[in-house]
Order: sequence, then structure tokens, then C-alpha cells
Amino acid sequence: MQKYDVVIIGAGAAGLTAAIYASRRELKTLVLSMNLGGQAAMASEIENYPGAEKKSGLELIKIFADQAKKFGAEIIFDRVKKISAKGGKYPFKIKSTKDNFETKAVILALGRTPRRLNVPGEGKYHGKGVVYCATCDAPLFRNKKVAVVGGGNSALDAAILLSKIAKKVYLIHRRDEFRGEEYRVTRIKKTKNIELLLNSEIKEILGDDFLNKIIVENNQNQEKRKLEIKGLFVEIGYEVDPALIKGLVDLEENNQIIVKSCGETSTPGIFAAGDVTNIPYKQIVISAGAGAKAALSAYDYINKNK
Amino acid sequence: MQKYDVVIIGAGAAGLTAAIYASRRELKTLVLSMNLGGQAAMASEIENYPGAEKKSGLELIKIFADQAKKFGAEIIFDRVKKISAKGGKYPFKIKSTKDNFETKAVILALGRTPRRLNVPGEGKYHGKGVVYCATCDAPLFRNKKVAVVGGGNSALDAAILLSKIAKKVYLIHRRDEFRGEEYRVTRIKKTKNIELLLNSEIKEILGDDFLNKIIVENNQNQEKRKLEIKGLFVEIGYEVDPALIKGLVDLEENNQIIVKSCGETSTPGIFAAGDVTNIPYKQIVISAGAGAKAALSAYDYINKNK
Repeated sequence: MQKYDVVIIGAGAAGLTAAIYASRRELKTLVLSMNLGGQAAMASEIENYPGAEKKSGLELIKIFADQAKKFGAEIIFDRVKKISAKGGKYPFKIKSTKDNFETKAVILALGRTPRRLNVPGEGKYHGKGVVYCATCDAPLFRNKKVAVVGGGNSALDAAILLSKIAKKVYLIHRRDEFRGEEYRVTRIKKTKNIELLLNSEIKEILGDDFLNKIIVENNQNQEKRKLEIKGLFVEIGYEVDPALIKGLVDLEENNQIIVKSCGETSTPGIFAAGDVTNIPYKQIVISAGAGAKAALSAYDYINKNK
Repeated sequence: MQKYDVVIIGAGAAGLTAAIYASRRELKTLVLSMNLGGQAAMASEIENYPGAEKKSGLELIKIFADQAKKFGAEIIFDRVKKISAKGGKYPFKIKSTKDNFETKAVILALGRTPRRLNVPGEGKYHGKGVVYCATCDAPLFRNKKVAVVGGGNSALDAAILLSKIAKKVYLIHRRDEFRGEEYRVTRIKKTKNIELLLNSEIKEILGDDFLNKIIVENNQNQEKRKLEIKGLFVEIGYEVDPALIKGLVDLEENNQIIVKSCGETSTPGIFAAGDVTNIPYKQIVISAGAGAKAALSAYDYINKNK
């Protein structure tokens, strides 16, 4: 059984910044995560993270990870199976696929996972044309026709990225205006090979071995249109997976963790930061700031309970 | 009378990040500040800002400013004299030394100013040996004996910096242990030309034209000691200047602005971020995250009140 001062679940912007701050305070710090980067790593180009010249999300997040390791944090890539509170000097027990850990404090920085469309064919063609990470899979669709569905920044980013790679991009959104930044909307409207389908919803995903068309319905006049495409990029937002956290800390109805201003959850000793929390704005710098606050809160908590 | 969507007061990490986010949302954005950088610019070496390789605070903050300007924010260096709420489409009026501005929303990111010791001789020798910014003035004390007073990170940083420049550094702190990061404390204890004076308080600052000694008293046994030094670096924390904000928004007793989790103050349309707020941890990345949240809150507020 390995013992830590603080175990951080998740290695995105929030988790890694928490690791930087916890290890700088000389806490014995472990980061447990399935992979590096969280949502941040999905972004092909980060322009709005203050202090960093334009780079990819993964490049940026690798610097975070190097800083955390330099100050002494350990990073282990493994799936967390269970977090439980049992009292004592190391009150929290964490079980991963390969190991068990005990810790004085926990920082939940699990992030969110992509939301599904829930239309016929989505499951069948997942990984066979239906894609949930544009940054990861866009290069596979060179000179093909593709569609992006969604209205927020990640949908807009996916469309911009794909417009440089694919032959044609349909951008499908169920409302008549986008939620994403004006900056991106302006850029999209100027891009010739992006066609906007507003007030439109995907009804079915069809194909043979591989996706080859989708049925789109206009929700104002119920007119249907068949689009022949090879790739469908689903960018309709993210949701929190409650499996590890339900019953451990108080959640909102959408499963986001309720936090106070410095990352405190309803359970003393458990802190949370980043996209998994009920802070409405999901941005790398906001997650990073929240990760730093959660680590400093954990440090103060550990010292108070010495 | 110039009109803006949002006027940000202060050009530190919080204010400039707010400017990046506001201008990316295509708000007409003005930053008004006496100077660039706030507290961040005072740091000689930033190691814990995630995603940025080691650099000086001023170098880091200049990148923030370049990003803000690139996205369209204006930065004007001027002293703000008064902020008032008068209603209408542009409800806030801001008077600076040289100009007047009207705006739909205000973000207060004024930061804090160094706290004074309040001992005899401090005023007389301010600028004549008594220094409030180690980063700025340390190079003037090469091969001299100096003292640093304080127990937080900025005092520890000042002592580390000065140990490389000055002949000898006394580090004076009124308690028996430091509030600053262990990382720094460990480094200080290993540094030969730093002498620690714990449980010690400065009683008087003496000299002729220029400071040449201080009287230090041990607060456990009341023993007094005279230290012959040429420079005294006062690093005992910072305080909020209430002049511009008292009556405008609700303050805590120490004049810090009370904010909700996304930077909302008690006055609709006025947001706040960074060291001027009641968030207890003062760190560049925390201020940056708060600045982003305040800008996105201001954007939502402006859209809701269209």
C-alpha cells in the first residue's frame, strides 16, 4: 500500500497545475490518470492561454506535466476503480486497476467526457466514421466530405480545423446561432468550404461497413436532407461521468461537483478543480487557476489536521 | 467621451487575462493602468506558472499584454481618479488623469500595494535604503550588507535573490516559522550568507543621509540587537487601497473585494479578479483564471442586458 499526502485524479490542466502547486509545497504527490491532457490536449491550437505562445493543446499540457515532475510529483497512467473514505491518518483509499493507494487528501480533476447524440446508427459507426475528437482523427479525412455537429467552441474549432483538411465541411447546429466565440464564428463565415446548416438536427446515421450518409432534418419546416459524408464529428458538449464520485461528494443534477471558491467539496479532505466542477466556464486557464487553489486548500487542510 | 463595452482597471495577470478573453469575445475592451504587470512583474523568476518555461515575471506578463493587444484590446497607461455608476446604456463612468470613459461593464483588477512596517525612520529612509521591491532594487546593493523583513514567499524570494548579490542577508521574521513555501525555506536554510533572525521585530531605522543601521528586538526575551546594514527590504505583505472602490462594491474589513465564484461583485455590471479580491491565495495562475472568469461573466452580463 503506497502512501501519499495528496492524490490527484486526472492529468488535464487542473490536475497537473494542482500537482505543480502541491509538489512545490513539498507534499508527496501522485497524479493518477488514464492519459495525459484531458480536454486541453484535444485542442489543435491554443491562442488564448495567457503567457504561452501559440501551440497545440498537447504541447502546452506536456509543459505542465514536465513542471509537475520537476518539482517531484509522480504521474501514473492507470484507471481509478474506486475512491473510499475510511478515516485514520490516511483517510482516503484509492483502488486502481494495478494498485492501491492511501492518501491524506484527494483532488478530483477528472474532467468530462464527450456527450453522445443518441440517434440510430451512432453506436454502430462509432470509430467507423463517427468521431468524438476532431484533433485526434481529422487527419484521417483528407479530401473527404465530413460533417460537424454542435454550436459551441469545440464544434467551431473542429469545423475550422477540418476546413483545412477535408474537401467540404457541413456544420450542423440545432439552433439559429452559435454559442461559441464571435472570433471563431467570423472566421467560419469567411471559410468557403464550410456550409452551415442551422436549425438542423441529425436523425439517422447510415452506411455499410463504414458511415456514408446522414439524414438531417430542419426543425423549423421538417424538411429532410441526405448528406453524403465519410466522417461525422460529434461536438455537442461534454458530461461528467458520476461513477467514481457519486456518494463521495455532493453533485449538481448534471453530476458536476459542487465546489466552494477554493475547490472545497462537501467532504473535508476532498477537493475538486476543472471541468468536473460546477464552475460554468470551461477554459484551460480557469482550470489551471482552480487546480492551484485546490492544491493550496489541500495543503492548508493537511497542515491543520496534522 | 469614449465608449467601451468593458473597461478593465489594472494590467496585472488578472486584468490582462480579462482583456484577452473580453477581446476574443469581440467586446470593445480598454485596460487602464498606471503600469504593466502588477505583482507578477515584480517576480525575478517564475517557475510555477503552468505552461511557461522559467522566465521573469515581467517577461511573462509582456506576453499576456501582447496577446490582449493582438485580439484588439487597448491598453492606456493613466491613473484612474474616479469610477461612478450613473445608469443608462453605458452605466459606468470612469475619470482618469487625462480622459473620461463610459462603459457597459467594469472589471476591477487593481491588485494590492506593499504594506508598511510603521516604525520610526521608515518614511525618512524610504528610497534611501528602505525598499519595497526587491526585484527592482536588489542590484543596487552589490556586496553590501542588507536585511529582509517578512515571512511569506515574497520575503523568502527577496532573501534568495539578495543572497546572490549582497555580501550578507539578515532575514528577520516576527514568528518562529515561515509562511512561505517549504521549497524556498529549504533553499534559504542551505544558503550560507543568509542569517535568520526569528521571533524578531524591527523597532527603529537609523542613519544619516542614508540608512545605516536598524534596531531589532527578540520578542521572546526582549533582547535588542543593532544590525549595520545599507538596505532594508520590507516584504511583509500587501494591502488593498480602498480609494477607488469603497462605496462602489462590498468590501471585507481588509478592503478586499467580496466576489462570487465567477468574479461577480455586489454591484451588477462590476466584476473583480486577482489580488484585489477576497480569494485567499495570491498566485499568477489563480489571478489569470479569475480574470478569464470575470471577462466571461461580463460578456454574459452585457448580452443579457442588451
